[in-house]
Amino acid sequence: MTEHRVLNFGAGPAALPESVLKQAQQELLNFQDTGMSIMELSHRSKVFMKVVNDAKRDLIDLMEIPDNYEVIFMQGGATTGFSAVVYNLLAAKKRTDPHGKAPVDYFITGGWSSKAAAEAKRLGANVNVVVDTKKSTGAYTSVPPPEEWTGHLSGSDAAYVYYCDNETVHGVEFPYIPEVDPSVPLVADMSSNFLSRKVDVSKFGVIYGGAQKNVGPAGVTIVIVRKDLLTDLTSYQDTPSGAFVIPQMLDYKTLVDNNSLYNTPPMFSIYIVGLVLQHLKSLGGLEAIEAMNKRKSDKIYGIIAKSALYKCLVQEGSRSRMNIVFRLDSEEREKAFLKGAEERNMVQLNGHRSVGGIRVSLYNAVTEEAVETLAAYMMDFEKDTTQ
Amino acid sequence: MTEHRVLNFGAGPAALPESVLKQAQQELLNFQDTGMSIMELSHRSKVFMKVVNDAKRDLIDLMEIPDNYEVIFMQGGATTGFSAVVYNLLAAKKRTDPHGKAPVDYFITGGWSSKAAAEAKRLGANVNVVVDTKKSTGAYTSVPPPEEWTGHLSGSDAAYVYYCDNETVHGVEFPYIPEVDPSVPLVADMSSNFLSRKVDVSKFGVIYGGAQKNVGPAGVTIVIVRKDLLTDLTSYQDTPSGAFVIPQMLDYKTLVDNNSLYNTPPMFSIYIVGLVLQHLKSLGGLEAIEAMNKRKSDKIYGIIAKSALYKCLVQEGSRSRMNIVFRLDSEEREKAFLKGAEERNMVQLNGHRSVGGIRVSLYNAVTEEAVETLAAYMMDFEKDTTQ
Repeated sequence: MTEHRVLNFGAGPAALPESVLKQAQQELLNFQDTGMSIMELSHRSKVFMKVVNDAKRDLIDLMEIPDNYEVIFMQGGATTGFSAVVYNLLAAKKRTDPHGKAPVDYFITGGWSSKAAAEAKRLGANVNVVVDTKKSTGAYTSVPPPEEWTGHLSGSDAAYVYYCDNETVHGVEFPYIPEVDPSVPLVADMSSNFLSRKVDVSKFGVIYGGAQKNVGPAGVTIVIVRKDLLTDLTSYQDTPSGAFVIPQMLDYKTLVDNNSLYNTPPMFSIYIVGLVLQHLKSLGGLEAIEAMNKRKSDKIYGIIAKSALYKCLVQEGSRSRMNIVFRLDSEEREKAFLKGAEERNMVQLNGHRSVGGIRVSLYNAVTEEAVETLAAYMMDFEKDTTQ
Repeated sequence: MTEHRVLNFGAGPAALPESVLKQAQQELLNFQDTGMSIMELSHRSKVFMKVVNDAKRDLIDLMEIPDNYEVIFMQGGATTGFSAVVYNLLAAKKRTDPHGKAPVDYFITGGWSSKAAAEAKRLGANVNVVVDTKKSTGAYTSVPPPEEWTGHLSGSDAAYVYYCDNETVHGVEFPYIPEVDPSVPLVADMSSNFLSRKVDVSKFGVIYGGAQKNVGPAGVTIVIVRKDLLTDLTSYQDTPSGAFVIPQMLDYKTLVDNNSLYNTPPMFSIYIVGLVLQHLKSLGGLEAIEAMNKRKSDKIYGIIAKSALYKCLVQEGSRSRMNIVFRLDSEEREKAFLKGAEERNMVQLNGHRSVGGIRVSLYNAVTEEAVETLAAYMMDFEKDTTQ
């Protein structure tokens, strides 16, 4: 049966590889001849444990994660993810900083890092803003080089340095990995560019990301954490603001000690992540995927560069390969653009509700053929509307 | 195509209605003619919002939830669920108890309520144990009547009273709803008997449950909370132990204010829950389901009552209709029982790893036919082994 399928440029939850969906469909009532759906299996069954362990192994292979790191599958999305960072890394720092007043350094380059910094502050951390581009430049449209940071890194005093590698809403992606004091853990939210290119994991204390962009469905968050940062928080009762009480399920060490099976994990989401990881391996791994993603974004940015109609406000050099945001000359024209796209089977191209405009998300599962179709439409649309 | 399917008596994740799985399978690549999987849709799309709103409405209908309650879909399982109770209800209490020393009353009648009480203590709450049956009777095998409680309720001083309505591991179910001071919110973990019988929701402050027993797959937790208990915790900084810092995603009010869409929710799990709720409605609602569940558990307990081989250590009157735990006269015989069951297509009948033995879980999706098959096997097995 051939299904009706569209070209999905959504920002997340986003397109999944069709082969993955087909496999999930095929085995939905009978997973690996167990006579049960993957959703009906005990999370402590050997069959499911293998799903978790295979997914971990494939992620380690793909990202070349060194031995001194652990991989965790959590719940709660990036929002829970950035709360967990605060708790776990302040606790790790307190081993050498018993008064818990250590600063935490935040780069604010878009909506997500802005939220993360606000959460850290709310949870009582001593937040130091390295740069807030909305304040320094008027908009989240760049990642400035070190000489344009309005603040500074706290050096070895910091409990950690935090940034969001790709800002999904604003279409801004870090062109560099910030250089930090070697004693300070660097933390990156990679929710929307996870597994889209090669990353030197050894430079990080923590990398985390919600799965629902490049790696799977909503409901699971992947955390890669350096082992020396794992701290026993079971009875931790001390924080910058007086009491450090952390819900059990946000404690990295509890999750690591239980191989992400402290309680029932989001099994179906982890299973789909596992299938996506196998698919990415079959495509040739991250080197091939990085090259493909570059071709895809070059294609669309190339059209914008030559266009009099499409304007990308993000500075060159900071433009995201994953989320390309641009405006047309009026909201009416933007509506016409989106309508025409839908008529041509291309959907979820609207910008985030907070910013408007057009957003083209080019995650791993968006094919080059889909990008060609969009590119042709963009050129046709400009020709037709400006004649 | 007829799939190989087994009779699944697992304790959770557990059997799902086959019709639900088939519908999910059929529309996995193309949900409601969107040309996308439900997993590929934006959580802010109209199509998905309708999924959430329909699921809420169906739950309200089935449980006859009064207007002064809200329904939340959360992540994190029952463990995150009982952490969230502590944060949210202590905050609600502090409106009238600014020093935050109010006791919280816990019934400990099995593994889950024991864990919940430990978490409350760890999070700094002033835990008062009403009864701990392991301490008072030597084992988690009963829910004693009020005259046998070794402690007492704290009356109107309490921030809340907590119990676990059905203990999945120990097979103990409350035969009554504890009577509490009308000013004190009663909280019940109903993870493993959710929607298995009629419940007078108006008696509760909070009811919550992980979906993966009676209502859906792992990855989503349903919370029903009385509106007057919703407290703005956004900048809450005060707790029994000095500082009340709550991760944003555990804050009921944030979730309610955003219709469970503060961030990307576990969409596929919510979707399956929605299908299960429709299925339960089609069966005739909770009255019909309660009667069916009673027939199922009566059947198995009836066999145990007449048996010289099967011993249920849980006291009559406190026995769970959902999880029937029993022992045979030796571990070898238990192994033979499980092996024979598997040969007859009946699986996931092993007791929890912490207690051993046999556990028959009879959630809503376990059919009466499956129970008849198991019942016949239990009788045959006893006859064969004791001849």
